[in-house]
Amino acid sequence: MDNKVIDPWKGTEIKDYKRIMAEFGIEDMSKLVDQLPVKNPYFFRGVIFGHKDFKVILDAVKNKKPFVMMTGLMPSGRFHIGHKIIADLMVYFQELGAECYICVADIESYLTRNISLEEGRNVAIEEYLLNYIASGLKPSKTRFYFQSEGSKNYMNLSKFIAGRTTFNELKAIYGDLTPQKIVSAFTQVADILHPQLKENGGPKPVVVPVGVDQLPHLNLCRDIAGRMREYKFVSPSAIFTKLIPGLKGIHTKMSSSDPDSAIFLTDDERTVENKIKKYAFSGGQASLEEHRKKGGNPDVDVSFQYLKLLFEPDDKKLDKIYNDYKSGKLLTSELKEILIEKINKFLKIHRANREKAKKMLDKFIIKN
Amino acid sequence: MDNKVIDPWKGTEIKDYKRIMAEFGIEDMSKLVDQLPVKNPYFFRGVIFGHKDFKVILDAVKNKKPFVMMTGLMPSGRFHIGHKIIADLMVYFQELGAECYICVADIESYLTRNISLEEGRNVAIEEYLLNYIASGLKPSKTRFYFQSEGSKNYMNLSKFIAGRTTFNELKAIYGDLTPQKIVSAFTQVADILHPQLKENGGPKPVVVPVGVDQLPHLNLCRDIAGRMREYKFVSPSAIFTKLIPGLKGIHTKMSSSDPDSAIFLTDDERTVENKIKKYAFSGGQASLEEHRKKGGNPDVDVSFQYLKLLFEPDDKKLDKIYNDYKSGKLLTSELKEILIEKINKFLKIHRANREKAKKMLDKFIIKN
Repeated sequence: MDNKVIDPWKGTEIKDYKRIMAEFGIEDMSKLVDQLPVKNPYFFRGVIFGHKDFKVILDAVKNKKPFVMMTGLMPSGRFHIGHKIIADLMVYFQELGAECYICVADIESYLTRNISLEEGRNVAIEEYLLNYIASGLKPSKTRFYFQSEGSKNYMNLSKFIAGRTTFNELKAIYGDLTPQKIVSAFTQVADILHPQLKENGGPKPVVVPVGVDQLPHLNLCRDIAGRMREYKFVSPSAIFTKLIPGLKGIHTKMSSSDPDSAIFLTDDERTVENKIKKYAFSGGQASLEEHRKKGGNPDVDVSFQYLKLLFEPDDKKLDKIYNDYKSGKLLTSELKEILIEKINKFLKIHRANREKAKKMLDKFIIKN
Repeated sequence: MDNKVIDPWKGTEIKDYKRIMAEFGIEDMSKLVDQLPVKNPYFFRGVIFGHKDFKVILDAVKNKKPFVMMTGLMPSGRFHIGHKIIADLMVYFQELGAECYICVADIESYLTRNISLEEGRNVAIEEYLLNYIASGLKPSKTRFYFQSEGSKNYMNLSKFIAGRTTFNELKAIYGDLTPQKIVSAFTQVADILHPQLKENGGPKPVVVPVGVDQLPHLNLCRDIAGRMREYKFVSPSAIFTKLIPGLKGIHTKMSSSDPDSAIFLTDDERTVENKIKKYAFSGGQASLEEHRKKGGNPDVDVSFQYLKLLFEPDDKKLDKIYNDYKSGKLLTSELKEILIEKINKFLKIHRANREKAKKMLDKFIIKN
């Protein structure tokens, strides 16, 4: 991150979140978490660290007004525990009253990754939708759609957007432009705005969980929303999520294309155990004696981070693990065992839920 | 025309057709006209002066293979005698076996001229479609559609095109780029290619009548067609039409926004008479005596040009008028009378046909 341009198609790695927040006007989520009517660990553990206009969503929840959580997925690769956050957030926001829009970015993946619509469709359903449903998504409050199959008004919106921006603006936001990037960007803006079309019930608050790398799309979208006055769009809100680190270290990426970096939701018990034992970066000392004496460093320990960010919602239990590890009382092998057990317990339930989910697919796949 | 860039959105005026033809690889139509199975004055009188790959269309006609004539319209302004050429060409090509696709460029007119979809729809139907039907268009061989209401595959095609071109190519073709121009261009390319989609019967020859100012779109489309190998598109053919001059001179434009420059198909007899008497530029001499002595110049006389280009299909009659005017035997007032009578005779029939056309509208307006 040497300059102000973030490339949303390359997944820029963010090291200094505070600087990014200041630079791009992202507000601190910790100031709003107390207003959440239902507590959620993601908001307290720093997974969701920032926001734009989240107050608008809190007001909608408080006043029982309709609102939307909008999310998109690139139909490539396999669903891993990092993707679980979005699934859980959808279930959470649905509990708070949201309708969820899930966009399969098949036009974008065709344009930027050369994935065919058919391939994208299969991955979106088999990898994403099944896991989302298994996580507890309600069909009555979900609109799962493909960019290639949206309504006419949605398709047209993605073209009309061209009239509300300029080349210079696009260059400032995206840096190097290509025709693919422009069409992808306009399609994404339409994705975020179309829940507010008349055919979808008209203007309403929309919250989009995004990684910082998606900030360019979001900013463009918010600016354009304000310019399309005839639609009376409410400027979309955003919550910013941190990336879950890969197994090999807290500054590595969990990537679908590197199985050793990720725990997939389809991994079996043995695979989970092996991956964590073999690859999960440890904050422990070189020898058992040294560990007992000096203690470990939970802040760089990937197993501890997974417990903190994903698998141990109980603050007291987490604090105890933190302190025990730091003091040397808890060994790395023991910490890993705790995590393995937690993940396998979750995956056992999730596997069963996914079997049930297969029978529910029809309820989610609507044709326009 | 100072450089190689033609701006299709500004309607560049073309003065030197020969140079343009050489520069942009447009072939001379006069070399192919003898192969037309049914004669048509537009091809002999220089209205259609050039082509690209028209041989492909002639082969389709000869072998009774399916082919398409594709045309688009900007839904703004009023239908004038200059627009009549396209109407007549559709009827002509339908007789030769073509299916006609008529695209209402409502997305493009929204983006580049800020015309709402509703307004565009009304103009397209009231001004264009009615006059097309009145000219003899067959509903069974016509697909009249709006860019804003195309099929999903058509909409997606207009986005996929982004992946088959580059910024540098677009800049070389269009000069200054705007997001509107890019989206409009991609939509136009999809318009020209989509008659060859599987849902429309698959690959087949398509001929597009265009003014030279539309050459950029056409060239882009032909290049992209070749790159989308998986679709097996036949490279679209084109025939190039000259603009019919405005009343005020052979180098002026007939414009919907200047009623004194144009004869509209809704003008009544009196209006036609007045416009031609008052505004039609004359190649005659200043006085009757001088005219009788020196003769007139039919080559710059707008009334003669309208007879030649639009209203007198009989070569012998036209030759006689030409010679009589040139020799001074035919006076300007007499020449104008011939034209007025021809136009009003045509308009009388056309008016009756348009009344019948109103009852046929439903047969042409399909909803996807």
